[in-house]
Amino acid sequence: MKIILLSGGSGKRLWPVSNNARSKQFVRVLPSPSGGTESMVQRVVRQIGETMPDCDVTIATGEAQLGVIKAQLGTGVDIVTEPERRDTFPAIALATSYLAMEKNCSDDEVVVVMPCDPFTDNGYFATIGRMAEAVKDNAADLVLMGICPTYASPKFGYVVPQKGEAGKPVMRVEGFTEKPSEDKAAKLIAEGALWNGGVFAFKLGYMKAITGRYMQAASFAEMRKRYGELPKISFDYEVAEKAKSIAVLPFSGVWRDLGTWNTLADELPGCCIGNAIVDNPECGSQVINQSGLPLLCIGTSNLIVAASPDGILVADKEHCERLKEFVDKLPQEPRYEEFGWGSRRVVDTSASAVTTHVCIQQGSSTGKIYSDEHSCVLTILSGNGNVEITGRGIITLSAGEVIKIVKGEAYEITTSTAMQLIEVRL
Amino acid sequence: MKIILLSGGSGKRLWPVSNNARSKQFVRVLPSPSGGTESMVQRVVRQIGETMPDCDVTIATGEAQLGVIKAQLGTGVDIVTEPERRDTFPAIALATSYLAMEKNCSDDEVVVVMPCDPFTDNGYFATIGRMAEAVKDNAADLVLMGICPTYASPKFGYVVPQKGEAGKPVMRVEGFTEKPSEDKAAKLIAEGALWNGGVFAFKLGYMKAITGRYMQAASFAEMRKRYGELPKISFDYEVAEKAKSIAVLPFSGVWRDLGTWNTLADELPGCCIGNAIVDNPECGSQVINQSGLPLLCIGTSNLIVAASPDGILVADKEHCERLKEFVDKLPQEPRYEEFGWGSRRVVDTSASAVTTHVCIQQGSSTGKIYSDEHSCVLTILSGNGNVEITGRGIITLSAGEVIKIVKGEAYEITTSTAMQLIEVRL
Repeated sequence: MKIILLSGGSGKRLWPVSNNARSKQFVRVLPSPSGGTESMVQRVVRQIGETMPDCDVTIATGEAQLGVIKAQLGTGVDIVTEPERRDTFPAIALATSYLAMEKNCSDDEVVVVMPCDPFTDNGYFATIGRMAEAVKDNAADLVLMGICPTYASPKFGYVVPQKGEAGKPVMRVEGFTEKPSEDKAAKLIAEGALWNGGVFAFKLGYMKAITGRYMQAASFAEMRKRYGELPKISFDYEVAEKAKSIAVLPFSGVWRDLGTWNTLADELPGCCIGNAIVDNPECGSQVINQSGLPLLCIGTSNLIVAASPDGILVADKEHCERLKEFVDKLPQEPRYEEFGWGSRRVVDTSASAVTTHVCIQQGSSTGKIYSDEHSCVLTILSGNGNVEITGRGIITLSAGEVIKIVKGEAYEITTSTAMQLIEVRL
Repeated sequence: MKIILLSGGSGKRLWPVSNNARSKQFVRVLPSPSGGTESMVQRVVRQIGETMPDCDVTIATGEAQLGVIKAQLGTGVDIVTEPERRDTFPAIALATSYLAMEKNCSDDEVVVVMPCDPFTDNGYFATIGRMAEAVKDNAADLVLMGICPTYASPKFGYVVPQKGEAGKPVMRVEGFTEKPSEDKAAKLIAEGALWNGGVFAFKLGYMKAITGRYMQAASFAEMRKRYGELPKISFDYEVAEKAKSIAVLPFSGVWRDLGTWNTLADELPGCCIGNAIVDNPECGSQVINQSGLPLLCIGTSNLIVAASPDGILVADKEHCERLKEFVDKLPQEPRYEEFGWGSRRVVDTSASAVTTHVCIQQGSSTGKIYSDEHSCVLTILSGNGNVEITGRGIITLSAGEVIKIVKGEAYEITTSTAMQLIEVRL
């Protein structure tokens, strides 16, 4: 059994702690069992490891998230990046092609596709195990997870079981209803409908056949190259709604979408994360401070205050849902980015220059950085290593060293000890 | 007539926009007649210029405020810096010695001492003019401004006129009562007492005689050198409370202490200063953003949100008075400083380095900067000029130039056009 985690999304609903390079699933604020904090995707991958230790994980994502995924998950997962953002059907088609053609999985291999950011308990993963069993037993071509509804939400998609199936451990599916009115939702729930949790299990050959209708590629490389030929459509519309044989398994444990500050706040460990003082810890205000500046909250109640190199948010918890409309108006260039080798944080911008604090982990390499648009000055603050500049050879680096990179040059830094440097782009 | 403006105070009550190098009187958030913003001290000096154009202004302050005073007031005022912070009596003694020995003012010269941060209307300065007249006419040795009380405040000092004096334009003073209880204050007000506005007028010779009891200095330089011999005591205790002949003139116009965010907020031009969005401008929340980061307020009400390179404050307006107790716990090193030649803003700090964005005005010189404790790297972002490094001569500077200053060297930058640079201190 293979798991494909879908990692997409923009960073607008948890701004400014998330941004375009660091969607909500990468925000490291949840309490981890080790006593520190972990992100939603780190939590899900940890839970998979705990409940299904033999299960390989492949992450389907966009190029922009490659760095942060490597930074947060290391080498324990495979990563398939889409050449361009399309929709969930092409993304899943590409990831299953990777399993078939690069990992040589057989057509009978059970594949489970799931989102990378639900906040759940381990029972969720036990349900996934039973879904895989149902696929293996040919209960249906496509097996879904149905979340047992707790209220008549108009925001979810509903999976409607066939008449007489309600209460069975594996129910045959009649159809789907996307975001019904509240009245309609209540009626559906009374008839046994479940929320569509976005978790799908199927045999690899099933998805191969569907993909084959659009493209016959001889290799994963060819598939990736011709990615633009796949239709921009969701997996729900292209596969689930057209499927002839669908079953659903119910899940009734903890299942939350921590996609807004209001919902995330309930899961945060205490009222302050980062360098912050809240005068009254019982006031309901919560602070996430990643800005490097001291932060004080005095006499406030029921606020979310979040600060990062990207900006500062002060919001009443009840009004957090309106965040996106305002963030859309702000500059989208992320000022904090994580990579497999370290991180970059913009500390100053002026009309003529951008100044960035760069951290490079011990024994890492930045890969080639092209300075096509600007010259830059690197001042090493701490650490040891070297820089290779195209046409100029290798120069040893240590604290106090200053390197000028001319416009048009490329450079790559390799460290022996963890390094910090200031880069001024002119 | 000469005016001495007392400029002291710490920056804690308007943190993080004020700091130890930029007390509340230097916070540039008040609307100015030219359409921009001005600080409290800029406002007072402008009002003096408008109402008493022939009056010289001397500012008595500490060394730490020299830069910001030059930056905000230019060369239009004289500045007397105390060699060490003591109290208002020695500060006023030093400033009057400056008038006597450096400006050669006669013993008959009328001197008015006043705070640099009251928010008043021009009638305040008309009252000061009448106080000077009263001193000139020998109505008393010491003439005070009495603010007509609007409520029985226990926070002010009260000036109590002699019996039968109430209602006269110039009243002889019976005595003083410091911060009475509310009941006592109400009783005092009923008897005609006024708030002590901290404005004092006297002839220069009067103060010279009092100073002479502690020190006979032959020059202003000697006075400054022996400054530590003057007692650490306030002008109120040392002079006003001991004076035999005191009069008070009432003032009943606008007079406000904008010393806390709550009082300052009422005078701010609108709900946002700086790069900020408040979703509902009618919500009573006000933002002052000098941080360089975008700031969003959503669904909040009645908050002060202030951000600067020194930190971030989110406070309910009713609770702003508690700010100082929390700011006392924070690091006191200012991260933003203004100078006569420009400004410095810390943009990044790490264990091994401090990175600063430096702006130098056109045609200015930084004066000698000693790099005794650290080496540093200067990267010029924009502008032209030169740097003189002790023992290394003069080097021409332009955008992209990088200068390494070795520990122990001193350097001075002189600009021909406005310059921006990044300094990394190691």
